[in-house]
Amino acid sequence: MARVINFYAGPAALPLPALERAQKELLDFEGTGMSVMEISHRAKEYDAVHNEALDLVREFLDVPDTHKVIFLQGGGHLQFGMLPMNILHGGRVADFIVTGNWAKKAYKEAQVVAKDAAKLAASTESEQFTRLPSQEELKLTPGAAYVHFASNNTIFGTQWFDFPETGGVPLASDMSSDFLSRKFDVAPFGFIYAGAQKNLGPSGLTVVLIREDLLAQCREDLPSYLRYKTHADKNSLYNTPPCFGIYILRNVLAYNKSIGGLVTIEKNNREKGHLLYGCIDKHPDFYRGTVTVKEHRSLMNVTFRLPSEELDAKFVAESKKAGMVGLKGYRDVGGIRVSMYNAVTVDNIRTLVSFMEEFVRTNG
Amino acid sequence: MARVINFYAGPAALPLPALERAQKELLDFEGTGMSVMEISHRAKEYDAVHNEALDLVREFLDVPDTHKVIFLQGGGHLQFGMLPMNILHGGRVADFIVTGNWAKKAYKEAQVVAKDAAKLAASTESEQFTRLPSQEELKLTPGAAYVHFASNNTIFGTQWFDFPETGGVPLASDMSSDFLSRKFDVAPFGFIYAGAQKNLGPSGLTVVLIREDLLAQCREDLPSYLRYKTHADKNSLYNTPPCFGIYILRNVLAYNKSIGGLVTIEKNNREKGHLLYGCIDKHPDFYRGTVTVKEHRSLMNVTFRLPSEELDAKFVAESKKAGMVGLKGYRDVGGIRVSMYNAVTVDNIRTLVSFMEEFVRTNG
Repeated sequence: MARVINFYAGPAALPLPALERAQKELLDFEGTGMSVMEISHRAKEYDAVHNEALDLVREFLDVPDTHKVIFLQGGGHLQFGMLPMNILHGGRVADFIVTGNWAKKAYKEAQVVAKDAAKLAASTESEQFTRLPSQEELKLTPGAAYVHFASNNTIFGTQWFDFPETGGVPLASDMSSDFLSRKFDVAPFGFIYAGAQKNLGPSGLTVVLIREDLLAQCREDLPSYLRYKTHADKNSLYNTPPCFGIYILRNVLAYNKSIGGLVTIEKNNREKGHLLYGCIDKHPDFYRGTVTVKEHRSLMNVTFRLPSEELDAKFVAESKKAGMVGLKGYRDVGGIRVSMYNAVTVDNIRTLVSFMEEFVRTNG
Repeated sequence: MARVINFYAGPAALPLPALERAQKELLDFEGTGMSVMEISHRAKEYDAVHNEALDLVREFLDVPDTHKVIFLQGGGHLQFGMLPMNILHGGRVADFIVTGNWAKKAYKEAQVVAKDAAKLAASTESEQFTRLPSQEELKLTPGAAYVHFASNNTIFGTQWFDFPETGGVPLASDMSSDFLSRKFDVAPFGFIYAGAQKNLGPSGLTVVLIREDLLAQCREDLPSYLRYKTHADKNSLYNTPPCFGIYILRNVLAYNKSIGGLVTIEKNNREKGHLLYGCIDKHPDFYRGTVTVKEHRSLMNVTFRLPSEELDAKFVAESKKAGMVGLKGYRDVGGIRVSMYNAVTVDNIRTLVSFMEEFVRTNG
């Protein structure tokens, strides 16, 4: 079996040992004589997986007791609507920092729900999202319920390394594309959500962290599934959770823990960035990075253009022949995008960089 | 590897060949060098699976062009709220037939959303849901937007074989526990939803059918994820779908098709019912069926009690030793529940019936 090097932006590469573990026990989970997909979510065999998965999320980020960890469905898209539905009532407002397609969608969906209570704090759209706004550019509303931003922009290749300063207003972040790729302090965050399909597991599972004070502000007159409290109170077992996705997340995090946890993961991600941006910076006329501020360049999604669309296409085609897939830029944007989530190894990036050096040598 | 006979109520048994197919290609899907979990939902390799899954649902039920088939997340519970959110505005009302816990939850969630516009058409709760209401007992509202019912009651073991007559008002049904277990005419249904985790695949995937006229009545001022139109217009690819769940559903339906499709499935389910209810009816003082009207007894979930709770517990323990799991009744109800979805074979039921004959002989 020949595995390729997978640079898809999501669903994306998962650690091979986590998948091998799943494959081995797919018909007989831990001697139960059943697949983990076939086991009741109320059975003790599943319960152990469920709680281990929740505990691993807490452990990786030292999540304080002030925050609940919840497993949901519906992806980031459901959260775009669900968060403002829960919080933006009774005169509450929220600020939105728009730095890419998803951050913009979060803002627009909040406007659908809460009209003018969703406020635009900053946008870099007029610069095609090629950088993040500076702290000085943020027009924050005093007393806002939260300030929403996307910690990493999958499409445009920017990432926040210093989170916005809000003067105590809770941060709320779509971390779908960089959650559990690095350590950070959870305390200032009132709300975090992440679709699993980048760094955590398969699509169909969303990890949510919500702080007590935000939980207390949630509306009570919403359908049960749309209330965070429903899930927080029932340990994410109010209804049937996406058990298999949670199981794979457990496998992924257990493997990541075995190689040193977030310390190793973050070190590897930095090394990958060092290697790949090193190559780009060495050939700036050929590999034209799309992000204009170097300090904003993402360690998860690296975006650049070649001197022509023909060369972009040739790069994608030849890299595919060399066993690397998923390097074509986002459909509306073009160019090249290298998504290098946790499961993409330092060696994978070395292979890519070798390919890039050879490609510039023969085409530059 | 010793597989058990799995009578869990959901997540539940899946056809072994569908799981074996998944196991075989879990690390390398169709020569891509990736797991199906690792492939972009915009990639052509996944696209083929997605469309085959949608097509199989259509094919199994001869779904007319008037109906869209949609893959969603959030289970039946999200649909309890999402359907009334979409439809019960502008003075529209809906009728609810309450025949068990889930049908009751659907009614209650609709009340949260739409207050008095959710109307109780009938309930058998005062009889502990031991039967379905008769046609004459239904208090239907003329001109209602839909009449909601649960086609099968997992907990109390009843199933509708003749659907309610509504005089042309669209039927809306939670079919989570019997969808694709039998043929029926989709045309009178304005809305059907089914969590996958009984007859279709793993948890975390919901199949929805919605008719054009209901789709046209949906609110437009809801967050995108909560609008059926969003998903219908984008072939269930508006956002990242639960790809692996859809893939397993595809495997399950492709296998079911290979053994003769719904004709075979339905014939097997009838035979299973014949065998198991035959045993119960042969020993009515020992195996005390909880459903009072024989014509309402479910072919999916068979519920009965033994003469004492001690015998119930002994039955569960001894059946487990004999390689059968999941026979304990629902937590609030007690007794025995045999969930025998499509993947439970006629031979599995023969094994259970042999065990039951022996159990009554030694304990009766």
